[in-house]
Amino acid sequence: MTTAHHAPGGSRPGGRTARTREAVLTAVFKELGRGGFAALTMEKVAQRSGIHVATLYRRWRCIEGLVCELLTDLSSDVPLPDTGTLPGDLRALARSISAFYGDARMRRLIEAVVSAAARDPQAATVLRSFFGERMVLAGRMVQRAVVRGELSADTDPEQVVSALGAPFYYRILIARRPVDQDLAESTAIAVWAAARAGAYASKGNSSNNSGNSKTN
Amino acid sequence: MTTAHHAPGGSRPGGRTARTREAVLTAVFKELGRGGFAALTMEKVAQRSGIHVATLYRRWRCIEGLVCELLTDLSSDVPLPDTGTLPGDLRALARSISAFYGDARMRRLIEAVVSAAARDPQAATVLRSFFGERMVLAGRMVQRAVVRGELSADTDPEQVVSALGAPFYYRILIARRPVDQDLAESTAIAVWAAARAGAYASKGNSSNNSGNSKTN
Repeated sequence: MTTAHHAPGGSRPGGRTARTREAVLTAVFKELGRGGFAALTMEKVAQRSGIHVATLYRRWRCIEGLVCELLTDLSSDVPLPDTGTLPGDLRALARSISAFYGDARMRRLIEAVVSAAARDPQAATVLRSFFGERMVLAGRMVQRAVVRGELSADTDPEQVVSALGAPFYYRILIARRPVDQDLAESTAIAVWAAARAGAYASKGNSSNNSGNSKTN
Repeated sequence: MTTAHHAPGGSRPGGRTARTREAVLTAVFKELGRGGFAALTMEKVAQRSGIHVATLYRRWRCIEGLVCELLTDLSSDVPLPDTGTLPGDLRALARSISAFYGDARMRRLIEAVVSAAARDPQAATVLRSFFGERMVLAGRMVQRAVVRGELSADTDPEQVVSALGAPFYYRILIARRPVDQDLAESTAIAVWAAARAGAYASKGNSSNNSGNSKTN
């Protein structure tokens, strides 16, 4: 599942498979922009892309799969920065996320993906593995910061980058207001201050687990 | 819309309307626990609650409305703390949120609400106004902290309490892993450190707006 997606831009550029994929993902994006997830069907995607609906079903199984692949494709437009300092990297990444979701179609897309995951376990798996991979990649900026001595060695990279992303998804999915540059700035400052204060210290080794405070 | 919901526990306790409401919300909760949002229908809620489906449609219009009302009802179980210090309040609230969403049914419920909002503008309005109200109420802990001198006067309460909630919704909806006590502890520490560092300073007055950095 984790390697089921094609590289952004399509494998074998110019090949027929790549062209089909591009036409289909473009159609999904346009249809999402027009009617949102509620109105999205395989039939409409087939009509708009000119690809047979049978081909769509064979390759993507369901509309959820298509929407998740589109997310993967578009998110490669959010670059992972390397500015030389962690505050700089956090700020650059927060600005990229903010710019990405500044487009209402992208907000509709993430809503569609989360809705898909709520209904389809396979979509949920795709979503989890997609964000898991992104977190590992983005986490490298934290590892570099540790090497540079900006953060203590027990900082958990995944906690840091999750904390950077969380406010944007909260804003979009829960508060349901547009993201803006103010959110990017305040989030970058917040995560840096929290990381310096040790809020994201790794607990994964569980060597100092008190053993009785876990609730679920 | 903002005042359309009944008080938790039902107005006129013991009245017929309150009993109907309780039976229906209990049925929605049980059905969500069994089959998730995908399998939830007005007909199933009617069957399980013993309330006529026509009554359900008349009062709640659609399944989305019912699910949103259930969220409002259950969330009143998350108390707003007043421990005497902001770090204490943040920790207590984070623990309450963590305990609330430690129950898988609650995670399914918030998923259902977000899915509903993606498809139904009215559900989106309910969700936005519900969380807006919660944020205002929870923001009082920040106002008390400002009065006590723990934070500077320009701290924006809504930004602080949004930052406290965000990591839980990110964990549930995006990372798709269970919430736990570690997340509560690290979030409370992070928000306190960030607030002290001025990350949540109010920009609402726009008196020192540079005027050219706004993108959307």
